[in-house]
Amino acid sequence: MTGRLTVAGLGPGRGDWCIPQVLDRLTEATDVVGYRPYLDQIPVPITARRYGSGNRVETDRAALALDLAEAGGAVVVVSSGDPGVFAMATAIVECLDAAPDRWTGVAVEVLPGISAAHALASRVGAPLGHDFCVVSLSDVLKPWELIERRIDAAAGADFVLAFYNPTSRHRPWQLGRALEIVATHRAPTTSVVIGRNVARDSETVRVVDLAAVDPQEIDMSTILIVGSSMTRVVRGRGLATSVYTPRQHP
Amino acid sequence: MTGRLTVAGLGPGRGDWCIPQVLDRLTEATDVVGYRPYLDQIPVPITARRYGSGNRVETDRAALALDLAEAGGAVVVVSSGDPGVFAMATAIVECLDAAPDRWTGVAVEVLPGISAAHALASRVGAPLGHDFCVVSLSDVLKPWELIERRIDAAAGADFVLAFYNPTSRHRPWQLGRALEIVATHRAPTTSVVIGRNVARDSETVRVVDLAAVDPQEIDMSTILIVGSSMTRVVRGRGLATSVYTPRQHP
Repeated sequence: MTGRLTVAGLGPGRGDWCIPQVLDRLTEATDVVGYRPYLDQIPVPITARRYGSGNRVETDRAALALDLAEAGGAVVVVSSGDPGVFAMATAIVECLDAAPDRWTGVAVEVLPGISAAHALASRVGAPLGHDFCVVSLSDVLKPWELIERRIDAAAGADFVLAFYNPTSRHRPWQLGRALEIVATHRAPTTSVVIGRNVARDSETVRVVDLAAVDPQEIDMSTILIVGSSMTRVVRGRGLATSVYTPRQHP
Repeated sequence: MTGRLTVAGLGPGRGDWCIPQVLDRLTEATDVVGYRPYLDQIPVPITARRYGSGNRVETDRAALALDLAEAGGAVVVVSSGDPGVFAMATAIVECLDAAPDRWTGVAVEVLPGISAAHALASRVGAPLGHDFCVVSLSDVLKPWELIERRIDAAAGADFVLAFYNPTSRHRPWQLGRALEIVATHRAPTTSVVIGRNVARDSETVRVVDLAAVDPQEIDMSTILIVGSSMTRVVRGRGLATSVYTPRQHP
């Protein structure tokens, strides 16, 4: 008997920001697989066996989930945010692509989640209200030169930029360099939205000028949204601070 | 008495892909404002007064919603997808920014939704699994030259591209031109995911080569995701067709 593998997005971490179909799949699951802190974020009671793992073993985790599904399970792999953005959906399809003779017949579905960038944007209004780019600053799996090229191109064409994975213990200088590249195209007063643990009890959201961003104050749980030349800040109206990128370009 | 204005994302159009907090706000609302077809997509019973309007009157709709909130209502403005992406959250903040003396004291919140790009991506695996850009092809409010510049920059830096608002009766040639620009940077065999009415009963999703995209077959209800040079297709495994952008760059 062959089971089903659901790759599910939990959203940013509160239960009422996770789509009901994901909550249903979790309730019905026989096995739930994920990075350990994400298992702790599951917002509904589950009876499934839990398989927690570390951060850098996506491929092992994907193969385990596929094995459990092949054995007949109703398996859910959980990701924070959206599973299709720098997350487990890619790892699952990579596994299937790399091993054409394995896991034949396992049905796969991907269920989306509120991504970290959209969650952060919602907290301040609409900074992603116009054309934007999403870039991971992690050079663990791609060359740093490509990341620089992408940031330079996107900033040069006046996109809003969302930065994922801005920094880590092993990547201390990359965010500073990324902001330097942006600064060659943008005014020092460009608005940057900095969000940590968005939509959770420990949430912090700040809006600062590009020239005032201190990479030392930013950690791996943080997302940054760097405005375009058009992005504006409105203080003390509606939201405490609103940041938006207008629809109209003069 | 001053009320509250919630700008809420319905997601792509099925109730179990809309976050529970939005469903709660809709249930409790006194007034719901939106583009008429979106009002018809509200997936829970509501007792609120409904204010439907046409497609091109975002500013009027935003002002009406702010007026209703100022009069004490619990007002919800609905957008399809995510309200922060080419949608009503921007229009609301623009209104507040343009009229510093009006609607003082109205509390505003934005609640996110599953955006059309992430919904479509989930249907085929993980085409947005690595760095990507989101671009609206509508030149109603921004100059076409800027759109061309952005597409050229993003395609040149090997981003995956998601195109919103690809075409309309008044914009017949823009999508063809956009694909021509992409083709100066990408192989004709680059995968393009074309989704219409994603996650609804009338959903259609196709994966075709860049050279085979026919703009005449695409309408305003369609989103396109154009792969990077790394994006791969896997047929007949897990999902009927999987499209993914690998995490690792050689």
